[in-house]
Order: sequence, then structure tokens, then C-alpha cells
Amino acid sequence: MVEASAVMTIPRTMTAMGFDDPGGPEVFRAETIDVPQPGPGKVLLKVAYAGVNRPDVIQRQGFYPPPPGASPIPGLEVSGTVVAVGDDVPREMMGAEVCALVSGGGYAEYCLAHAGHCLPVSSALSLKEAAALPETLFTVWYNVFDRGWAKEGDTLLVHGGTSGIGTMAIMLGKAFDLTVITTCGSPEKCAAALAVGADHAIDYKAQDFVEAVKDLTDGKGVNVVLDMVSGSYVSRNIDCLAPDGRHVTIAVLGGLQAEINMAKVMAKRLCLTGSTLRPRTDEFKALLADEIAQNAWPLFADGTLRPVMDETFPLSEVSAAHARMEAGDHIGKIVLEVGGG
Amino acid sequence: MVEASAVMTIPRTMTAMGFDDPGGPEVFRAETIDVPQPGPGKVLLKVAYAGVNRPDVIQRQGFYPPPPGASPIPGLEVSGTVVAVGDDVPREMMGAEVCALVSGGGYAEYCLAHAGHCLPVSSALSLKEAAALPETLFTVWYNVFDRGWAKEGDTLLVHGGTSGIGTMAIMLGKAFDLTVITTCGSPEKCAAALAVGADHAIDYKAQDFVEAVKDLTDGKGVNVVLDMVSGSYVSRNIDCLAPDGRHVTIAVLGGLQAEINMAKVMAKRLCLTGSTLRPRTDEFKALLADEIAQNAWPLFADGTLRPVMDETFPLSEVSAAHARMEAGDHIGKIVLEVGGG
Repeated sequence: MVEASAVMTIPRTMTAMGFDDPGGPEVFRAETIDVPQPGPGKVLLKVAYAGVNRPDVIQRQGFYPPPPGASPIPGLEVSGTVVAVGDDVPREMMGAEVCALVSGGGYAEYCLAHAGHCLPVSSALSLKEAAALPETLFTVWYNVFDRGWAKEGDTLLVHGGTSGIGTMAIMLGKAFDLTVITTCGSPEKCAAALAVGADHAIDYKAQDFVEAVKDLTDGKGVNVVLDMVSGSYVSRNIDCLAPDGRHVTIAVLGGLQAEINMAKVMAKRLCLTGSTLRPRTDEFKALLADEIAQNAWPLFADGTLRPVMDETFPLSEVSAAHARMEAGDHIGKIVLEVGGG
Repeated sequence: MVEASAVMTIPRTMTAMGFDDPGGPEVFRAETIDVPQPGPGKVLLKVAYAGVNRPDVIQRQGFYPPPPGASPIPGLEVSGTVVAVGDDVPREMMGAEVCALVSGGGYAEYCLAHAGHCLPVSSALSLKEAAALPETLFTVWYNVFDRGWAKEGDTLLVHGGTSGIGTMAIMLGKAFDLTVITTCGSPEKCAAALAVGADHAIDYKAQDFVEAVKDLTDGKGVNVVLDMVSGSYVSRNIDCLAPDGRHVTIAVLGGLQAEINMAKVMAKRLCLTGSTLRPRTDEFKALLADEIAQNAWPLFADGTLRPVMDETFPLSEVSAAHARMEAGDHIGKIVLEVGGG
């Protein structure tokens, strides 16, 4: 570990928001823990902001334990300043403002990140916005373009158009010349999804999304479904898919079990796939970060794209932030202010 | 249409085995119909032998109607001699002995085929053997290697190891350096699958194939499942799959509906896909025939691989041939002798 410069004294301990037993948003409590030290390939970030994501909620509920070796403190994305670097990390990273995908530990004053999982924060982007990007950007990029093979001219169906994932999928889809159809739970959310850039927003409480998708695509169907609902939605998504369509599951918020007509999978030559990001190897994530840095990050670095921001809460009010996410009224990303900046 | 040479006089009518109403094997009856004339791109074959396939049985039962434009007479593969060619087909094809994938009409004295869907029958192969190849070869090649991305070193699980599809999957899998695990319904069938070349054969009536696959792969699982059972097998197949595994459905003999845990699809990054061959475009089938001619056909042309042959029946006894397939006691391919040779 390279020592921090004199201007950035790193304390021995820090405040983090953790919990003893899983439960509701109220289980969070401040704890004082050691500031971690960056080993080989890693950097220590003084956290400015930390993004709040659905997996954090599921972890807090006790259904998504951290993978081996990861911090028990929630938080999968942060922005901040590099204040210490591991032995083999270029010293030039010291002092850099970055955002990073992390395997946990984001809800804290300091957080470790792999040097290869960081993206530089340019002047066109605030640190607050930057903290709202890594988790959804990595997830949407990989699942829509790499796993879902979305290409120019394809039509993408994404449920929950106003969620963090949904807004990112709309933005990236439009930036890469997809037609994007979203579903949302109210006219207000539909309007918000359209404002983000969706071509169509279906109020799923007012109409059957399968019929609506058929109408919107002249009966052709969509090429890719980004599925975070699963459960009973899967068979309906299958009915929305065009021949050779891809169905990519990234969450199972509507239930694990799906009943599928395999004859439809055969007849339309569908591919049902999915992935989880957190347990992937550091090498995989670094390769994915490289791919994103080349292809998508320039659009954020120059201000062409900005994350859709919901509310920001102080780190100490993480319980309120989780309650807001669970209420489902948010539009875009919920962020925690830690050191700020 | 180029006229046949004097030595091959083509009659105006021919005998074919069809049926009026769907039903059991007994519904077949001989009918006298016009010999079809080859349009552009097509050849007329004087049929030597016709392969019997499971889709023929399902068609006869009334559950698999021929696609638009296809003959109502069953039969998806034939061998024989080219006796007439369409305008744009090279005259050199006249008199050639070939086998072909056809979209129907194989149970007849003459059958149309696309010139691009024919494969040459070499002296190392009998016309009887050649008739037993196209349907399973095209199906297994496309689904295991193209859709299932099977590659050297992968492990393939194929159910019904002694069926036409099963024996072809074993042979092709071994020829292209896969480890092949099959399931069969009796010790005798397991022995037959091993004799064809399977690395392992699981008697699914004597042991749970999921546990057996775990044991055989040291807990790692298989990379590809070629699924022709579907229904309740799908969730069990998923439990057999290794991370990044592919599940390719080509038939739904065990039922259409599968209940799937989508969290497993995500966590293992599986791909559930499948296809049907018959409704694909002529262009697609010609491209596939080219790929097979380049990669797999040389192994049959030089006698390295031969189809596993079950019984041969005269065309007039097609009812007995279907009854044998439905009884499930056959090992390998059932073939109809038409003109013979």
C-alpha cells in the first residue's frame, strides 16, 4: 500500500452503515470499523456518494448474502477520490476522482475498489451523478448488448422504465439506435420514461402489455426483453418476443418460478438467459469495465448522457433511502451522500 | 424441367402412403397421385429409401401439420436417384445418387428435393443407410454445434440415446471430441448406446439422471443438453447444467409446459433455446447443408461414421414401421424401402 499524501490523512477507523440481523429498512445502524487497506490491484476511495440499488435492499432483507470475500456492508457503487493505492497500482491514480463498481462496502466513508473497475469522473459529470452510474451501466450494458446481442435497429422491451435499471436501459438503448418500449405502473411514470427517451411507455395497470407490444410492433414483437420481474411475466414476455428473440433475466422481483411453453421457445428459436454481476471474477469485471470505457463511457464523460436522479439522502439516513426504494415511487437513482463533493 | 433420359422413363402417377384423417398407425393407405415436376432449384428423386422420423408420427397423429407449400404426404428424408432437374439446376446432377432433407413427401415413389438440400451418396454408404441420415444429421448438427455452441472438450447430455437423434448425437459428439452422456430406458438400451460410442449411459428407470450426471462430471455438470423430452425434464436438465451451459430443445415428447427456476438461469448464466427445422427457409437449409457437407459429411462419405440402423419395412408396410417407432423398442433408424437399391 502506498501511503496517502500529507494532505489526505486517512483515519484508522470510519463510519459505515450496516446491520446485525436482516429485516426492514430500520435495521441499519452506524458502526465504526477499520478503514480497509488496498492490497494488490486495489485502490482506497474516500467515498463522496454511494448509489442505492435493489440488490442492497434484497441483501438487507437477508436474501442476497455477500459473496465470499466481499464486505458485509451493502453498497455496490461509489464515487470518490483515490486516497491510497495497492503496490502494483500506478501512483498516478492517487487523487483521481473516479466512480467504481464494488462488490460491497459502498455505504461507508472509505471503500476499496479494484483499480480496473474504476471509471474516471470528468468535469461534465458531478460526483453525485457518477455514483449513480456503475451498477446499472455495467448491468444494462452486459445484459442488453453482450448477452442479449442487441444491435442497431432492434426493439428492446424493458419493464420498470423509471427504475435505475429502466432509465439506464432507455438511455443506452436510444444511444445505440434501439427502439425502446417500457412498461411503467402509472401515467406519471410513463410520462417520465418518455421524457428519458423511451419510444413507447405502456401503463401495465391500464392495459395488457402483451397486446400493447403487439400493437406497437405491428405484430412483429421485440428482439430483446430485459427482464427484472421474472415469475409470471416470463411467459408473457415470451409472447412479446419476435422470432430469434432474446430474454435476459437480471432479477426475479416477481418470483423465481416461471412456467414456460417450450414449444414456443423452439418455434421462435428464442434464447432465455440471464446473469448476475456481483459473483463474477475481478478479471471479468475489469474486461467489462474496459469494454464500457471504450463504448459507453464517452457518452457520460462528455455529458451526452446523464443518469436520471431521484433523491439524495445523507449516509446516516440510509433507512429512509431504502424505504423510498421499497415504496417504488422513485424515478431514477437514489443516492447516499457520504463525504459529498 | 429437363426431361429425363430415355433410360429413366418417369410415369405420370405414382404410389404414395398418405392418410385422410389423423389417427393411429393404421390410418395409412396407398394413394395414387401425380408425380411432381421439379420447378426452379429443385430435383426429382426416384426414391430408393425413406427414413421414418418422430415428426412423421406426430404429423400422422394430427399434431404437426405440414408447413404451407409442403406435401401432405409424410417423409422428411429420402435417398435415391436424380431423374429430373429444374431449369436452373446443373444437368450434371441427372443420374446422381443422393440423399436429401425434404419438407415432406418422402413416403412415395418419387419426391421433390431442393438441389441445395442434397448430399452425394458415396460408394462407402448404401442408399439404405443414406436415407437414414439427413433429418437427424441436420437436426443434431445445427442444434448441438450451431445453437448449442458445443466445442471440443465440452460434455453433452442427450436423452433417448438409442433413438435416431440419440445415436446421431452420440456419433457426432464423439467425432467432434465431446464427452457424451446419454440416458436410456433399459440396461439393453444403455449397452446399445455405449456400443455406438457414448461415454456414459444412464438407465433413467434405475437411477435419477440428475444425480448420475453430477457423479459422472465430478459435480461440474454438462455444457450442453440436447432436449427432446421437455416438460418436467427441463428443470432437471437445468440442474445438470454447468455454469454457462446451453439447453437446446428440439422436441417436447414429455409435454410442452416446463416450470423453470429463473434464478438458476441467472446464477448459472444458462441459455435455454431450441429450434424446429422443417419451417426454416430453403435458403437456410441450403446454407446448413453446405456447412454439413464441409464439416460432417466427409465422415459419412468415407465410412468413418454409419447410421445405426433398426428395421427396414417395405413402403406398403409403413403402418408397421410407425407402430414400431411408437412402441419405442427400436434402436437407431427405421427406414422404408421404396424402390430399393
